[in-house]
Amino acid sequence: MATQSNFQMKVTEGQLGYVLQDVPHITDYIPNLPTYPNPLRFNPAYSVVKQYFVDMDDTVPQKIVVHKDTPRGVHFRRAGPRQKVYFTPEEVNACIVTCGGLCPGLNTVIREIVHSLDYMYGATKVLGIDGGYRGFYSKNTIPLSPKIVNDIHKRGGTILGTSRGGHDTMKIVDSIQDRGFNQVYIIGGDGTQKGAAVIYEEIRKRGLKVIVAGIPKTIDNDISVIDKSFGFDTAVEEAQRAINAAHVEAESAENGIGVVKLMGRYSGFIAMYATLASRDVDCCLIPESPFYLEGQGGLLEYIAKRLKENGHMVIVVAEGAGEDLLAATNEQDASGNKLLQDIGLWLSQRIKAHFSKQNKLPITLKYIDPTYMIRAIPSNASDNVYCTLLAQSAVHGAMSGFTGFTSGLVNGRHTYIPFNRITEEQNKVVITDRMWARLLSSTNQPSFLGHKQLEEARKEQEPQSQLMDDADAKTGYKERIKK
Amino acid sequence: MATQSNFQMKVTEGQLGYVLQDVPHITDYIPNLPTYPNPLRFNPAYSVVKQYFVDMDDTVPQKIVVHKDTPRGVHFRRAGPRQKVYFTPEEVNACIVTCGGLCPGLNTVIREIVHSLDYMYGATKVLGIDGGYRGFYSKNTIPLSPKIVNDIHKRGGTILGTSRGGHDTMKIVDSIQDRGFNQVYIIGGDGTQKGAAVIYEEIRKRGLKVIVAGIPKTIDNDISVIDKSFGFDTAVEEAQRAINAAHVEAESAENGIGVVKLMGRYSGFIAMYATLASRDVDCCLIPESPFYLEGQGGLLEYIAKRLKENGHMVIVVAEGAGEDLLAATNEQDASGNKLLQDIGLWLSQRIKAHFSKQNKLPITLKYIDPTYMIRAIPSNASDNVYCTLLAQSAVHGAMSGFTGFTSGLVNGRHTYIPFNRITEEQNKVVITDRMWARLLSSTNQPSFLGHKQLEEARKEQEPQSQLMDDADAKTGYKERIKK
Amino acid sequence: MATQSNFQMKVTEGQLGYVLQDVPHITDYIPNLPTYPNPLRFNPAYSVVKQYFVDMDDTVPQKIVVHKDTPRGVHFRRAGPRQKVYFTPEEVNACIVTCGGLCPGLNTVIREIVHSLDYMYGATKVLGIDGGYRGFYSKNTIPLSPKIVNDIHKRGGTILGTSRGGHDTMKIVDSIQDRGFNQVYIIGGDGTQKGAAVIYEEIRKRGLKVIVAGIPKTIDNDISVIDKSFGFDTAVEEAQRAINAAHVEAESAENGIGVVKLMGRYSGFIAMYATLASRDVDCCLIPESPFYLEGQGGLLEYIAKRLKENGHMVIVVAEGAGEDLLAATNEQDASGNKLLQDIGLWLSQRIKAHFSKQNKLPITLKYIDPTYMIRAIPSNASDNVYCTLLAQSAVHGAMSGFTGFTSGLVNGRHTYIPFNRITEEQNKVVITDRMWARLLSSTNQPSFLGHKQLEEARKEQEPQSQLMDDADAKTGYKERIKK
Amino acid sequence: MATQSNFQMKVTEGQLGYVLQDVPHITDYIPNLPTYPNPLRFNPAYSVVKQYFVDMDDTVPQKIVVHKDTPRGVHFRRAGPRQKVYFTPEEVNACIVTCGGLCPGLNTVIREIVHSLDYMYGATKVLGIDGGYRGFYSKNTIPLSPKIVNDIHKRGGTILGTSRGGHDTMKIVDSIQDRGFNQVYIIGGDGTQKGAAVIYEEIRKRGLKVIVAGIPKTIDNDISVIDKSFGFDTAVEEAQRAINAAHVEAESAENGIGVVKLMGRYSGFIAMYATLASRDVDCCLIPESPFYLEGQGGLLEYIAKRLKENGHMVIVVAEGAGEDLLAATNEQDASGNKLLQDIGLWLSQRIKAHFSKQNKLPITLKYIDPTYMIRAIPSNASDNVYCTLLAQSAVHGAMSGFTGFTSGLVNGRHTYIPFNRITEEQNKVVITDRMWARLLSSTNQPSFLGHKQLEEARKEQEPQSQLMDDADAKTGYKERIKK
Repeated sequence: MATQSNFQMKVTEGQLGYVLQDVPHITDYIPNLPTYPNPLRFNPAYSVVKQYFVDMDDTVPQKIVVHKDTPRGVHFRRAGPRQKVYFTPEEVNACIVTCGGLCPGLNTVIREIVHSLDYMYGATKVLGIDGGYRGFYSKNTIPLSPKIVNDIHKRGGTILGTSRGGHDTMKIVDSIQDRGFNQVYIIGGDGTQKGAAVIYEEIRKRGLKVIVAGIPKTIDNDISVIDKSFGFDTAVEEAQRAINAAHVEAESAENGIGVVKLMGRYSGFIAMYATLASRDVDCCLIPESPFYLEGQGGLLEYIAKRLKENGHMVIVVAEGAGEDLLAATNEQDASGNKLLQDIGLWLSQRIKAHFSKQNKLPITLKYIDPTYMIRAIPSNASDNVYCTLLAQSAVHGAMSGFTGFTSGLVNGRHTYIPFNRITEEQNKVVITDRMWARLLSSTNQPSFLGHKQLEEARKEQEPQSQLMDDADAKTGYKERIKK
Repeated sequence: MATQSNFQMKVTEGQLGYVLQDVPHITDYIPNLPTYPNPLRFNPAYSVVKQYFVDMDDTVPQKIVVHKDTPRGVHFRRAGPRQKVYFTPEEVNACIVTCGGLCPGLNTVIREIVHSLDYMYGATKVLGIDGGYRGFYSKNTIPLSPKIVNDIHKRGGTILGTSRGGHDTMKIVDSIQDRGFNQVYIIGGDGTQKGAAVIYEEIRKRGLKVIVAGIPKTIDNDISVIDKSFGFDTAVEEAQRAINAAHVEAESAENGIGVVKLMGRYSGFIAMYATLASRDVDCCLIPESPFYLEGQGGLLEYIAKRLKENGHMVIVVAEGAGEDLLAATNEQDASGNKLLQDIGLWLSQRIKAHFSKQNKLPITLKYIDPTYMIRAIPSNASDNVYCTLLAQSAVHGAMSGFTGFTSGLVNGRHTYIPFNRITEEQNKVVITDRMWARLLSSTNQPSFLGHKQLEEARKEQEPQSQLMDDADAKTGYKERIKK
Repeated sequence: MATQSNFQMKVTEGQLGYVLQDVPHITDYIPNLPTYPNPLRFNPAYSVVKQYFVDMDDTVPQKIVVHKDTPRGVHFRRAGPRQKVYFTPEEVNACIVTCGGLCPGLNTVIREIVHSLDYMYGATKVLGIDGGYRGFYSKNTIPLSPKIVNDIHKRGGTILGTSRGGHDTMKIVDSIQDRGFNQVYIIGGDGTQKGAAVIYEEIRKRGLKVIVAGIPKTIDNDISVIDKSFGFDTAVEEAQRAINAAHVEAESAENGIGVVKLMGRYSGFIAMYATLASRDVDCCLIPESPFYLEGQGGLLEYIAKRLKENGHMVIVVAEGAGEDLLAATNEQDASGNKLLQDIGLWLSQRIKAHFSKQNKLPITLKYIDPTYMIRAIPSNASDNVYCTLLAQSAVHGAMSGFTGFTSGLVNGRHTYIPFNRITEEQNKVVITDRMWARLLSSTNQPSFLGHKQLEEARKEQEPQSQLMDDADAKTGYKERIKK
Repeated sequence: MATQSNFQMKVTEGQLGYVLQDVPHITDYIPNLPTYPNPLRFNPAYSVVKQYFVDMDDTVPQKIVVHKDTPRGVHFRRAGPRQKVYFTPEEVNACIVTCGGLCPGLNTVIREIVHSLDYMYGATKVLGIDGGYRGFYSKNTIPLSPKIVNDIHKRGGTILGTSRGGHDTMKIVDSIQDRGFNQVYIIGGDGTQKGAAVIYEEIRKRGLKVIVAGIPKTIDNDISVIDKSFGFDTAVEEAQRAINAAHVEAESAENGIGVVKLMGRYSGFIAMYATLASRDVDCCLIPESPFYLEGQGGLLEYIAKRLKENGHMVIVVAEGAGEDLLAATNEQDASGNKLLQDIGLWLSQRIKAHFSKQNKLPITLKYIDPTYMIRAIPSNASDNVYCTLLAQSAVHGAMSGFTGFTSGLVNGRHTYIPFNRITEEQNKVVITDRMWARLLSSTNQPSFLGHKQLEEARKEQEPQSQLMDDADAKTGYKERIKK
């Protein structure tokens, strides 16, 4: 966890175990930059605010379940406006890029970066990069103004377009330099933030006065450190619709089985929360919890039992569940993610084959894959407000000279997190923790763990933390796994 | 803030300013009670959980934005299951009561208390009290079982019924004693939790082995200490619908004005968050921010300006805004809340009168009051999960012998909070903090504060805290006001 | 019914009682106009169509429930494209105006007129009139092109703006003449269509080659002759939301009463259909069915009975119900509609007063007025398709030289109807017919009719038709009342 | 068309070409049955109704677009209550069965049959058959009462369960006889109504006093004669959601293609109406309009063109489109429908392969199959009212002694239609008619018809009717094809 990096993270220690994992600042490599008073001082809307500017020393702890004598542990720098800024309004030349898959809220983040730069800092030069990272060097830019982006938060998708996969860091930084951008806002997932870290390092190497600010995006909620990713609430809400349909189809048929595939390549948060919110699910399969089909304690046995008891059942399966069960494939998609075969179709096929072979249980199975219907909706009100604050935090950070950071929510507070903390590990459902136990208790499904696996699972996670965090209402326990 | 009460709160101190404001325990006044191992140990769903039980010493800080040398401050006891319980499954005789106005999620909380008692602790005796506090002595109970409550979370309202207003504590405790209830779950707002505190004190006085556990309910999000109240997210989401309609009506008319009244008797959280989430609002009026109609800097001037610039506008007004402007009324409703006249109708009337009098600006004003359409919907997915965890925390606390507590989310962690901390102050929008500044900046409305008032507003809130908390993504800054 | 008008309607008779009530044609007063082949002939999309053009003689009967020997009765001219058109693409100079209150689908109609003129007839000169009739002479026009209107059907309201009330026909026709418009599309209700008839007569008097085409708009479904008005389905659907909320509120309170006011100044179609679709309503009050409060058989008696039986109830009241009960007011709003006081508020007040006076039944009444939330939503899929066909029919009619007509659906077929047939009577719920009986049977409410009134009601409507039409699934029985 | 059947249809002729295709009556084979006055006479709800009972001679024409001299053509008997009934309340012993796939509104139809029998005719013996036709002899019945079915219209699916496929007519009629059912309500599609016709013939052969009444159900709207099938409106509405998602996904990617598969094995009504209602679709493929991929005028060429012009596109494909393109398969599913391979997956695969092979156009294709999410929702308000009237008509018909009929909407009027008219042909989109031309004009897609095919298509449909019906707002032109 404590990967020390001179460039990516600045570590400060205090008494009683206090550790600040700080983000870089533009003055780390360009000293003696001029500063200006924050224009918010003169903004009428803020005139009533008593203590508008964040104290330079404000930090937020990563761990907050404590005892009387618990060491204070890792802290992050609090986000927010500072007294001094490092850019004049006229000087700002910002660009925004969105990468990876769609997620509710992308347009809200774009809108709010543009609005914040203009309305709070008077900066009007903002351009959109078309179609993800590659757009930096292969496409024209998209003009962005408060007026243009005014209603985009009511639409799904991203008005900037997006893409996955390979890009050339040198060409991107060349383009940044050539076009004279000095604030680069990068909205994307794990892979995108890694790319942002490399772009930041190249910019630092070249000694450019260019801020690189990340806003973490992952509908799967699999980004480390932060409480939850934007769009997650909206996705869980929309997933209810598919689960309801599966339930109705299953109930209306004899031995009806509804199978719903939800997003989650490496982590099962959407599946878990959608299951907990719905209560109509009899089995939830996620990547973190291996399962098997045949034999005692297997899924097929459980299905037969459930159908016998109840006449119908609903199975929710995360996209990345049962990966080991699928025929291994070496293909990689353009972003480097493993191209998984479709577990939902595969599972449906296997269940049908099993029960038709046995010839004793004529089942009716309906398979629903709502993925794109979930990803493409606009963000709900809660995510809208969240996206707004993330974007404002990123803009405050950039104007204040911080760089190489991700804007993120930690224990309900907005903070700046060094890129390496976001990218070195991935957030996963911890199947030995209470949130997953709650799910098991609500579905009554088997744990699919033999005694031996159980022991191993326990051991593996033991050293991580002496004090298990309770799940919060949003994201559940988190696992930090070195990748 | 530090109202010390022997009965209501147990205060423990530690080094570096650590303070634990602990909740009472049944053994505080009935010593030597037998304990039993927590049945969750033998629950297959929990067999995989490594460290299921909460450490007795786990606590959660109230303040988490800190400096290197910040004193540690107030902490609350972490919620969750304990190793030992004070009730056998057979012994439990629980009841649930819901009081006050409707709020999305009431049925989910009821459902989850019943399910948790049964599925986690094997306790099957649970009854519902019909129609709020008075139902304890004036009505028959309502049988509750996991099967009966299985689908109620998909419906709005409360299956137990509810009521406002006066009740007789003695009769309630008599009824509890007579019927042999030993776990009393009380779901309701500020007034209801005050009632629960009195019931708890009477029970303690009589020396009964009866747990009193509160679950805070307020659609207005005006309960102190906790991050947010359940149903709030759902309400803000649903409020978008009314704001959209007001916007469409206003846009389609010449000098169209859409006025939307939202809930919020004493605090404007719903109005503020709905405004921030929507972006179609030109003016948001809340109880915390006084405003005036006539003259320079007044609302009517601003309306005229907005109509001139933009041709239409949308005003969101919280139920309790502009109280001073309404003719004072001494009436009180049954719960002791002031019976405010309808500010929305009053304001609409005044605006219409003003512009018709002037005879120069023929406006078209449409007034929308979506209150009951918002209150009566089922909770969304996010609130559903939240309600589940609140209910489970309450049940864990009761089984573990804690009493006189409210189950509440503090900085994203579930905790037990002493009644007095919940009821002695009320959560309000702090108009000198950043969240309100963000709103002002997004609507461009005037602050309606003269220079003098501004100074006063600043002074008033100064002593409270040396370090202003940043708004978290959910609830914004909070004000603690002695009532 | 058979108001014969040389200008407004051309009547042709045939054998077996066949009567064609035909619409005027531009050649009625400007003979020898040149014609051109319909450009649709050369449209690739229509190349596959076997018999695209409507036969000049196609007509649609108004009455279709018949016996072996029933006379054939009144027919209307079928809508659709004709072989010959009276305008070249370059010659067309069209304008569109929307008048009166909002209704779901207005933007779809606007969009489809613009698209049809361009894509089907190559006519690109289309302007919008801003803010209703008065905009013809008091405001600038709004440019309309297929691109500009492309997404407007996804928004509620009207992009052209609207207004009620007085206008000067001469100034309008002057403006039409001055600006050189030759196709005038007028979207609006009863009053607006009357205005259109007068505009048409003035244009005819001046001998202008200007088409006047109406598209009937009334969310209340109170326009005569046609099957139903656009937006009605959407409104009934959306009204369910308010009724559900009222039901939840009523159920959760002791003696809970939910009162929902729905649109319907002179006719109760929305209230009736929303009640039939919902099934949670215990009483539906409409303008056509007088009721009384006090005494035997009165509403208050029924409420007391329902509360006693069921513990709660839901009342739906149309805006114009109980007009006689409200204090008579002589005020008129700008469009000439009587300014009714708010029956919903009045009724709620009276019910509360009655039960508090009696002091025996402590009721809880919640009043919901969802009017603007219903009017302002976009049209649903069914209304979207309907609006498209209405607009296309109007354009086909105008291009083919018909004028002074309204585009309307009769027995599921699109037709052209003379203005006078639309405006001389109003569509009402017939309370002596089966659809209302179905409602009474579904709510179990009293008919509020004494024996004497009943006799009168029967007699009054007797002569109208010897053969009562069955209600169709969409519009129910209709009453034709001379105004 | 005029398949004359002594048992299935009674044909009466009148002057001017009037033909009545009448349904059988129980007295056709059991003479001298006693009759009773209709109990509705004494129902207070109906006391105000002037002419409640349908005249025995009321009929409704199938064709209503007419000329002065058009022959009157085929008519159907009007549905509704009659003066005399053939069952006493006590005598009625009804059963209801639902067969085939899910469709919004099934539960509403069940609810209304039960309510109508009880509230209108006092008949309380109604049972549900579990799981479709086979349930008659292989399962227990399900008790049905007004109370049990009271809220089921708010849920999707069917509370009776359903199944597809083979059944034994003799066993069914044996079961009807053994259990003493005398009114059999059969809700299902084309295949189910054929089964009902056979059941009716067997019952007639055995001389049983048992009514067989059908209610046509097909989400695809492919049932002949009737205006539209229930659930169709709801399905088209819900399909918008998937099309919107496809549009957002397509717009956000470079060369993004969204493919949506909608229901429609043999007819493309849902695809056509969803496309017309949405306006975001660039290509709509239906079973009635063959298409090809490769070469000039083919789909792939069109896709390349659209992407070049617009950067993205949306394709809607009906389930049964392109059947000839799929590898022929001889499999049949249990109901006798051809088991088509999934055209959506196949098409997506082919498009991806084509553009990756060419290596010049890197497309991003997202495939959405919302089928089960559409089928499983509850019916919307419009379908709710429609289902109510269909069910009431069926009950009125059964009580009045009609049998071997289907309850159906013809030109907006409720009628009784002989089984053979419903089952001998299937409703299809006529691609040489105006509705399809409208679609082509709205999407700009090619017609995929060569000159030769075009000629053939025209000829084939020529003899059918001399006068082409205009599309009504609901269902468009219809084709009658002998199967």
